[in-house]
Amino acid sequence: MFKKEVYIKRRAELKKSLGSGIVLLLGNGEAPVNYFDNTYSFRQDSSFIYYVGLNSPDLAYMLDIDNDKEYLFGNELTIDDIIWMGNLPSLKERAEKAGIVTVLPLSDMITLTDKKRKIHYLKPYRYRNQIILSELLGKNIPSIKENFSVELTKAVIKMRLIKSDEELIELKKAGEIGYAMHITAMKMCQPGVKEQEIAGMIEGLAISQGNRVSFATILSMNGQTLHNHDHSGILETGRLMLCDAGAESNSCYASDFTRTTAVGGTYSEKQKNIHNIVLQALNESISSAKPGVTYKSIHRNAYKIIFEGLRSLGIMKGDTEDALNVGAPALFMPHGLGHAMGLDVHDMEDLGETYVGYDDEIQRDTMFGYRSLRFGKRLEPGHVLTVEPGIYFVPQLMEKWEKEKINADFINFNEARKYLNFGGIRLEDDILITKEGCRLVYEKRLPVTVEEIEKAVKD
Amino acid sequence: MFKKEVYIKRRAELKKSLGSGIVLLLGNGEAPVNYFDNTYSFRQDSSFIYYVGLNSPDLAYMLDIDNDKEYLFGNELTIDDIIWMGNLPSLKERAEKAGIVTVLPLSDMITLTDKKRKIHYLKPYRYRNQIILSELLGKNIPSIKENFSVELTKAVIKMRLIKSDEELIELKKAGEIGYAMHITAMKMCQPGVKEQEIAGMIEGLAISQGNRVSFATILSMNGQTLHNHDHSGILETGRLMLCDAGAESNSCYASDFTRTTAVGGTYSEKQKNIHNIVLQALNESISSAKPGVTYKSIHRNAYKIIFEGLRSLGIMKGDTEDALNVGAPALFMPHGLGHAMGLDVHDMEDLGETYVGYDDEIQRDTMFGYRSLRFGKRLEPGHVLTVEPGIYFVPQLMEKWEKEKINADFINFNEARKYLNFGGIRLEDDILITKEGCRLVYEKRLPVTVEEIEKAVKD
Repeated sequence: MFKKEVYIKRRAELKKSLGSGIVLLLGNGEAPVNYFDNTYSFRQDSSFIYYVGLNSPDLAYMLDIDNDKEYLFGNELTIDDIIWMGNLPSLKERAEKAGIVTVLPLSDMITLTDKKRKIHYLKPYRYRNQIILSELLGKNIPSIKENFSVELTKAVIKMRLIKSDEELIELKKAGEIGYAMHITAMKMCQPGVKEQEIAGMIEGLAISQGNRVSFATILSMNGQTLHNHDHSGILETGRLMLCDAGAESNSCYASDFTRTTAVGGTYSEKQKNIHNIVLQALNESISSAKPGVTYKSIHRNAYKIIFEGLRSLGIMKGDTEDALNVGAPALFMPHGLGHAMGLDVHDMEDLGETYVGYDDEIQRDTMFGYRSLRFGKRLEPGHVLTVEPGIYFVPQLMEKWEKEKINADFINFNEARKYLNFGGIRLEDDILITKEGCRLVYEKRLPVTVEEIEKAVKD
Repeated sequence: MFKKEVYIKRRAELKKSLGSGIVLLLGNGEAPVNYFDNTYSFRQDSSFIYYVGLNSPDLAYMLDIDNDKEYLFGNELTIDDIIWMGNLPSLKERAEKAGIVTVLPLSDMITLTDKKRKIHYLKPYRYRNQIILSELLGKNIPSIKENFSVELTKAVIKMRLIKSDEELIELKKAGEIGYAMHITAMKMCQPGVKEQEIAGMIEGLAISQGNRVSFATILSMNGQTLHNHDHSGILETGRLMLCDAGAESNSCYASDFTRTTAVGGTYSEKQKNIHNIVLQALNESISSAKPGVTYKSIHRNAYKIIFEGLRSLGIMKGDTEDALNVGAPALFMPHGLGHAMGLDVHDMEDLGETYVGYDDEIQRDTMFGYRSLRFGKRLEPGHVLTVEPGIYFVPQLMEKWEKEKINADFINFNEARKYLNFGGIRLEDDILITKEGCRLVYEKRLPVTVEEIEKAVKD
């Protein structure tokens, strides 16, 4: 964790921003796998980490703004615990590292929760925390999920969205691990190798050097299947392997990269052509990202590059602005250009994607493709974002559009059909918005041109 | 999954065994990490796998014994799902592979749950399933946890405890992965290497070749800390690395091995002596395991070997039977000799350890050490068990016993104190009880003698 002044300052700012009421930040508990005591690797709640820093289960933090008091709730180790778990620092000592003086047993949380006042809590995504809040506040679970504090949500998002220098060091570490994962995946990208084998090895690297993967690895020849966590394929010459993977640093900050590699390290002409369009979209997005520009406009510009690139290959047709206005390129890139990243890979998605990515000025679109953009806001120094354009040939989506004549003026379905077994290509980097423009969060860029990737596979 | 006849037969047997009422087996859902859609790797509920076989989230199975009907509840993929997730077989098709004809949407589970009849469900260990049962049956969560069906619990345990041939193939696969994990750990066991690095690499192997680790890896120089999931140490010459780790096969069957390796591959005399006592306890336990013998008696015999071994080193003293009667060896091995293993590494621990490991004939002990034995029953062909004796020098426990004069007649604390920085040694194999005796589940035994382990590290 960072030095205690960081957490004290953050809580003071939160207090000022809310002004009154009680803030309750519930830490996470262990998550059972197949019986209560067999648990997944522990992951603390990100907002709890941000304000309290302590990375262990079964803690809660309460800030009583009206009475200017704060409490950490948690149970001290018993003598039995010490016998089984070794000499660990007491909770009291650990709380001091977060600048918190008052430590009370978890059971005291009930008595100190003054239900007559406004209790600000964040929307609980863990079933355990839904149950705890339901019992604590005497409301049923649907009502608990609805009645989270919008005020607290907005205050937290405002703070967490701007990354500090100490956070950037952690994000860079996560990037370094992610870099190693992708280089490993490229080197293993040979015909006959199981997708599962590579996915496992790079997940192992994430655990070896950091906390865990920052999200379930996507590693598949079927890159066109966007929600794909299947790893049952065996790599074949002539196909592409799309790998979207990242790690968490030991302090739980995320990285998130995508590279698409030709199996065996030799690209076909078709693959090169598509790759180069995606690469152009990536590079131009990065070079146009700077304070004052909206990410929504950069997403639109990426669609422009994809449209014009595919038009040059004969797959799309017509006028650029007309095509963009109806969202025609979304057939080939149905997702958003990127999202905020920080303690969560989709930063603060638990707090509500639209609160994170949009505001009064920049509203979320409703059109297919555009609406999938998670982050559209005007960029500010300290924002950390992914940039991840892609081109996919999704048979079911192509069939649907052709049958329903959706945007038919802009698509040469006869040409597009020649790519039915192509899969998809996505390229993704992580950037930090600076005062002048932006830079990569982890400065060393993964191989990204066809030549660089071919070299990485064959080296 | 196995062929459908396996599941049909199991369900028929369960139906016969219960005779009446409604059986409800809730499958697991996804488990959120840091926001709802960022999930841990999916793990199906083991009893659901056993009776239904389907390994995907958000399913439930209902067996209406009185009306001789059975249902699978789950939602079919929508057209949108297919666009994002590819062409997957329908739930109806998948249900057929489990021999189930009637597939209904999840929402129908409510209408078909006839609360006037006995509804047999298993104790829910997942918070999500606690919430679902609470809503379904209109009871609060503490009451849901209490009122699980003991009848169903016993019927399931009776069946799952005896492993069939197809299950043994899966258990063997899990053993093969576990073997590779431990060989890798031994080879990496060099001074200067981080525990985290090794733990990550072997977890990666588990994911590369199987479903996941079967439990959170223990890999530490502080083997005496029994509940130890800290991997922050850097291996030092002269110390031991205790590694307790296993994998799940892709069908979710578990393995569980422990080896303790001298860092750098050279044992000191002290380490050799302790190792050889533990090895003798392991070997004698395995050779005495056979149908008709209680595991409780084998645990006691392991204590005997440990007592006599430590007495020969001057650490313990006095008469063997007297020492065993008061549980004196428990100071150095405060845990049980082993546990049942199958779809869960502690098989069916969710259903209640005592239901699994004890019965009317063989009751659980109350004495320290003995009481920690998870499985005491009379052995039967088809039982799969771990055998995991160990010797540890736990400073806090030694201090407590010396101060409180616990079993002081049997312990030379002055001698024992010379081992305060020793750590601990545990050796663990997995066995199948056969008609004649027992055999290793995965026939190839991990290096286990001092010489074999030294060779494995240095090779």
